[in-house]
Amino acid sequence: MSGVAHASQQSSMRDFDLTKYLAGVTVRVNRALDGGLPRASAKPATIHRAMRYSLFAGGKRMRPALCLGAAAACGGQEAAAMPLACAVECIHTYSLIHDDLPAMDNDDYRRGKLTNHKVFGEGIAILAGDALLTQAFELAAQCRGWPRYSHQDVFLELTRASGSLHLIAGQVADLEAEGRSIAPSHLRYIHERKTSALLCCSVRLGGMSANCTPAQLRALTDFGFHVGLAFQVIDDILDVTQSSEQLGKTAGKDTAAKKATYPAIVGLDRSRRIAEALTRKAFAALGVFRGRAAALEALAEFLLRRDR
Amino acid sequence: MSGVAHASQQSSMRDFDLTKYLAGVTVRVNRALDGGLPRASAKPATIHRAMRYSLFAGGKRMRPALCLGAAAACGGQEAAAMPLACAVECIHTYSLIHDDLPAMDNDDYRRGKLTNHKVFGEGIAILAGDALLTQAFELAAQCRGWPRYSHQDVFLELTRASGSLHLIAGQVADLEAEGRSIAPSHLRYIHERKTSALLCCSVRLGGMSANCTPAQLRALTDFGFHVGLAFQVIDDILDVTQSSEQLGKTAGKDTAAKKATYPAIVGLDRSRRIAEALTRKAFAALGVFRGRAAALEALAEFLLRRDR
Repeated sequence: MSGVAHASQQSSMRDFDLTKYLAGVTVRVNRALDGGLPRASAKPATIHRAMRYSLFAGGKRMRPALCLGAAAACGGQEAAAMPLACAVECIHTYSLIHDDLPAMDNDDYRRGKLTNHKVFGEGIAILAGDALLTQAFELAAQCRGWPRYSHQDVFLELTRASGSLHLIAGQVADLEAEGRSIAPSHLRYIHERKTSALLCCSVRLGGMSANCTPAQLRALTDFGFHVGLAFQVIDDILDVTQSSEQLGKTAGKDTAAKKATYPAIVGLDRSRRIAEALTRKAFAALGVFRGRAAALEALAEFLLRRDR
Repeated sequence: MSGVAHASQQSSMRDFDLTKYLAGVTVRVNRALDGGLPRASAKPATIHRAMRYSLFAGGKRMRPALCLGAAAACGGQEAAAMPLACAVECIHTYSLIHDDLPAMDNDDYRRGKLTNHKVFGEGIAILAGDALLTQAFELAAQCRGWPRYSHQDVFLELTRASGSLHLIAGQVADLEAEGRSIAPSHLRYIHERKTSALLCCSVRLGGMSANCTPAQLRALTDFGFHVGLAFQVIDDILDVTQSSEQLGKTAGKDTAAKKATYPAIVGLDRSRRIAEALTRKAFAALGVFRGRAAALEALAEFLLRRDR
C-alpha cells in the first residue's frame, strides 16, 4: 500500500478498512451536525439554509475523522469527541465560505457545487460564515470536560487554532503573498497556519476528549502538525495536476492568481518528496500508540495518496 | 433629571457621576482590550492593525459598561467581569465591521472615521471581523468560572446571544425587511435580536461574573432586554433627527434604504413614548438590587436621553 509507513504500521493498515471507516464517520458526523444546528426552517430560514447548504455540500469530513481517530487511539469514546469533531468541521466550513468570497479567492465552485455567495448572495454568505464560526463554539461548549482537560482548555485550543495568529493569519498571509515571490520558509509559515493549525487542533481535541496523557497529546500534536503540512502540499500539487472536474472546484486557480505554492517554488517532483517526508514524520509520531492508531495511520496515507 | 425613574432611583442617580464612571470604564476596558489582543506588530501585522483600528475607533463602550455595572450591582469585582466585558465589545465591533461592508449596509463612515473596509479593503475587513469574533471567545475563556456559573455557562450564554437565532438573525431579518412594509411585531422581533440580545447578554454575564443569585439574574435579564429595545428605538429616532456630523455615521440611511424603523412605522412622537416606556420597564426590574444598581440606572437614563 505504501512506501511511507513502517512495516508494523503497514500490517495494521492492511487490516483497516478506511473506506468503511470514513463512510461510517460521515454518517455519524452528519447526524450529529444535523442535530446540533438549528433546523433549516428555524427563523430566519435564509441563514439556516445557507449554513446547511455549505455544511452538507459533500465535504470529506477529514477533520472530524482525524478528531475521532485520535480519540480512538487514546482509548476514548466517540460520543465524547463528537461535539468537538462537529466544531472543527463548522470552523473549516466557515473558513471556506469566507475564502470563496469575491473579496478573497472569488471562487464560483466548491465540491462541484456553486459556492455559498453564488447561491445566497454575498451578504448572507458572510453572515452564514459568521454563524458557523459561532455555532462551532456553541457545539464545543456542549462537550463534557475531563479530569485532565477542562472546558476552558477546549475553548482556548479552538480559539487559538482559528484566531488571528493561526487560521486567519494563514489566510491573510496567503492573500498578501499573491503575485509576490516568497521564500520556501514563508510558504511553510502560510501552510502551518492556513491548514496545519486546525488539523493539529482536530487531533489534539480528539485526544483531550479521551483524557489522553501529556505524552499522547505531544504525539498527536506532532502527528497533526506534519499531516497538516503534507495535506496542504498535496492540495497545491492537485491544483496543478488535476482538472476542475476532478477537484470539484476551479483547478489551476493558484497559478492564475500567482499564488505561492510548493510546485511553483520547488517544482512538482520535489513537492511530492516533501509531502512524503512530512507523512513519514507524522507516522513516526504514532509509535506511542502501539498499534491503536490504525485510523490515524490510514488517514495520513489516504491524504498523501488522494487525487482530489 | 428624568420623568422615567422612580423617586428613590432619582436620588441614587443624582449622586452618581455617570460621566466620570464612563470615562473610568473606557480607560480600564481599553487597557484590558489592549493587553488581551495580539500586538499591532504581531505577524501578520495587517490583520492586527485592522482589528485594533475598529476596536479603538472611539466606541462608547456601552456593553462593557453595562456588564461591569451589572457585576457591581451584584457585589462582584470588576476584574472578574473584565474578560467578559471585553468579549462582548469584540463581538459588537465584529458585527459593526461586517454590517458596514458593501454587501450589507455599505457604509463609508462609522464614529466619524472611515469604516474598516474603506481603510483595509473588503478581504481584510471580513477577516478582521472573523478574528474579533474568535478573539471574543478566547477572552471569554480567560474568565475564572464561579460556583453558580461554569465556563460552559459563560460560553453558551455568549454563543447563543451572538448566533444565528439572535444577533445574526437580527441582521438577516433587517436585510430582508429592506424596502418592505412590515408589522410592528416583526420590527420588534428584529430589534430584540439585532440589539437587545447582546445587550441583555452583557448584563447577564456581568451578573454571572459576580456569582449572582437566580433572582438577580432574572432581574438583569429583564433590565437588559428592555434597555436593549429602548436603545434600538432611540437609534432609529436619531437616524431621522440628527445630522451625519452629530452621529459620526451617515444619517438618514434607514429612510434612504427603506429600512423598517419605529419612526417609519409609528411616527416620531409615539417612538419616543415607546422608548420611555421600555426604559421605565428596565428601571422597574432593578428593584431587587435595593440602590446598588446606580450605574445601571444612570446608563439606562443616558441611553434614553443621548443625542448620538
